[in-house]
Amino acid sequence: MQIISSDELGRRLDITPEQIRKDLATFGQFGRKGIGYDVRELKEKISNILGLQNKWRLAIVGVGHLGGALANYVNFASLGFSVVALFDNNKKIIGSEVNGIKIHAVSRMKKIVAEKSVDIGVITVPADEAQSVADFLVAAGVKGIWNFAPTKLSVPPTVPLVNEDLSVGLSALSYHMSQDKE
Amino acid sequence: MQIISSDELGRRLDITPEQIRKDLATFGQFGRKGIGYDVRELKEKISNILGLQNKWRLAIVGVGHLGGALANYVNFASLGFSVVALFDNNKKIIGSEVNGIKIHAVSRMKKIVAEKSVDIGVITVPADEAQSVADFLVAAGVKGIWNFAPTKLSVPPTVPLVNEDLSVGLSALSYHMSQDKE
Repeated sequence: MQIISSDELGRRLDITPEQIRKDLATFGQFGRKGIGYDVRELKEKISNILGLQNKWRLAIVGVGHLGGALANYVNFASLGFSVVALFDNNKKIIGSEVNGIKIHAVSRMKKIVAEKSVDIGVITVPADEAQSVADFLVAAGVKGIWNFAPTKLSVPPTVPLVNEDLSVGLSALSYHMSQDKE
Repeated sequence: MQIISSDELGRRLDITPEQIRKDLATFGQFGRKGIGYDVRELKEKISNILGLQNKWRLAIVGVGHLGGALANYVNFASLGFSVVALFDNNKKIIGSEVNGIKIHAVSRMKKIVAEKSVDIGVITVPADEAQSVADFLVAAGVKGIWNFAPTKLSVPPTVPLVNEDLSVGLSALSYHMSQDKE
């Protein structure tokens, strides 16, 4: 059995051991005082907390640069996610494949989402098209939306929405670089 | 003068007005009690806190799918960031351009970073190449690193590093979708 202490976890993650113990305690009983955490058990519990045992199936709407990059993103598989469908309105690319995944017309979304058992809709269209794509995805029955368009979307409370805003990370970097200059 | 209240800001951002007032207070005096914030002044102050007045210049290392997508990402410009150089080791693409930006050999990094006054190095290479790219960037004199490779990098404390991990957002979505099922 492989054991890791909160001290060692903290060191690797740049978080205080106290914070690690506190965060994990939110979700119940983890590890043993003075001994540490069983690595395999910890990984399995965290994976279950995050719902990663579900093997979610993704559809990407908008196969531009970002959508294409996500369709090729290898790290999803290691977390149990898989991209099973792509959608776009551009007739020139409908019917072609990216990374072995077929691009469908947006008008066929309802049918394909059902056929492919899509769980998560990924929005990588321009901001002004994002809300209508979100509406289509919700109508097609997806259970969650991952939005990369830089706009605030309105979706029913039953459909969890996570916004991915690349400018947040870059602004954080800018902040730290400015602090260091002073 | 355009005024916005912390109530209205909170409504738009899905944050409590108390949290907004508390967060802003961390950085000094903002707005007037019972009146609100002067929108233009608030934007300018936040921009200065984040160091966005600096017009940072970015170089992207690794022009694969993700690097190419970032080179085409239009929203950087609206925040004052600009991509001024691209680097790759693939001889087939060195010398060509993406979005009007030339791709250079990684071996020319020091020279190009100086010539183009690059501030921020963006790492979009595979995980096993990321540390050596980070070392090259630091040696070339960049002031900050934005890392998309799924690995923990070691850089000098004088060079701020922000890691962008797309699996974090997706795991958060998975978590919320799992909660809703129960």
